[in-house]
Amino acid sequence: MKGRRFTAEEASLLQDIILNRRDVRGNRFHSDPIPEPALQQILEAGVNAPSVGFSQPWEFVLVKDATRRQAIRDSFYQENSKAGDLFFGPRAELYQRLKLEGIVESPLNIAVFYRPPEQAVLGQTSMDEVGRYSVVCAIQNMWLMARSLNIGMGWVSILDPVEVRSILQVPEDRELVGYLCLGYVDEFYEAPELERLQWERRRAMQSLVHHEIFQTGE
Amino acid sequence: MKGRRFTAEEASLLQDIILNRRDVRGNRFHSDPIPEPALQQILEAGVNAPSVGFSQPWEFVLVKDATRRQAIRDSFYQENSKAGDLFFGPRAELYQRLKLEGIVESPLNIAVFYRPPEQAVLGQTSMDEVGRYSVVCAIQNMWLMARSLNIGMGWVSILDPVEVRSILQVPEDRELVGYLCLGYVDEFYEAPELERLQWERRRAMQSLVHHEIFQTGE
Repeated sequence: MKGRRFTAEEASLLQDIILNRRDVRGNRFHSDPIPEPALQQILEAGVNAPSVGFSQPWEFVLVKDATRRQAIRDSFYQENSKAGDLFFGPRAELYQRLKLEGIVESPLNIAVFYRPPEQAVLGQTSMDEVGRYSVVCAIQNMWLMARSLNIGMGWVSILDPVEVRSILQVPEDRELVGYLCLGYVDEFYEAPELERLQWERRRAMQSLVHHEIFQTGE
Repeated sequence: MKGRRFTAEEASLLQDIILNRRDVRGNRFHSDPIPEPALQQILEAGVNAPSVGFSQPWEFVLVKDATRRQAIRDSFYQENSKAGDLFFGPRAELYQRLKLEGIVESPLNIAVFYRPPEQAVLGQTSMDEVGRYSVVCAIQNMWLMARSLNIGMGWVSILDPVEVRSILQVPEDRELVGYLCLGYVDEFYEAPELERLQWERRRAMQSLVHHEIFQTGE
């Protein structure tokens, strides 16, 4: 085989990084800034993600200004108060107690946008959504890279994407894919917070994997 | 900080895996099967991706049967012949010469589906598409894990998702997110194939990153 050959130990280290990655919320972010070389490594990981037809349809807005982050957090508050009404019984109560974002506590926010193509993109002709999916691949690369640098990251999705675009003065043809909060943290939990709190259970592998055709009657 | 602390060398190894990951097409796949432990490691990487509200909305259909893979490839041929008409001049000619999938050459295909939720999902209340994005995060984890195991992966998106669902007898409420081909390979290219062929140029980091607000006039 031509190309770099990784060892079993190296594969196992990647597995450790994947297993130790967490979605980090505001209660555990430190405010000290992310050093420039670390930020560059995170962005480089993003732009080296796969993209359909090598279209690289990602754009990043780095937000540090406190006033601007407060405006984004206001959008979160507004969306989150609507969201709370969708959960019932004990879940409604638990929902209200959850800290779901670290927009102002984290020192750096990155809004990640999709730039739709102006002409046909190789590979994007049957399933248009794969352009946005390329941007998600970039975000996942950034998340793992951040974790390996012991930097926490949280993805905030309880936002009005049009509002975020307007606050950051982003052209109307762009589409918000993810809003990320990054910073050093007190702790990376051993398990996802929503698993610890028994909000959802982990699904068993055998219920997720089918062979040859889909087997119903799970 | 509580939780595993990774070293700079470990972060640098993750960077190497990210930089050496490639989209692999049919011309370089070997037909020898992927050992079961490697397949399990790849699937574990997938289900340990982040998911909105810990919803884990991913389902995987593993396809090895040759007849079934040929049926999927027929869907590719049909979609690809339509796609070819969307490129003009020298690009039209180059498009015809490109090998864009390894559906039958690779020993294993994995169709990855999104299972929409039956009730409200925490974090998915303002941007419904984040459920699908969770599935993409799983695919990117699988891609990196495969690469670290020296297994090539290609994402085929030139397919009719309804046709794929029908061939694999998947319920109508599920949605195809990605169709993956996996196998050992002759070579991992040093750069993406479409960059080598000058189909697209790599975009400069400074054109992709904005500070505080979006700067137009690129």
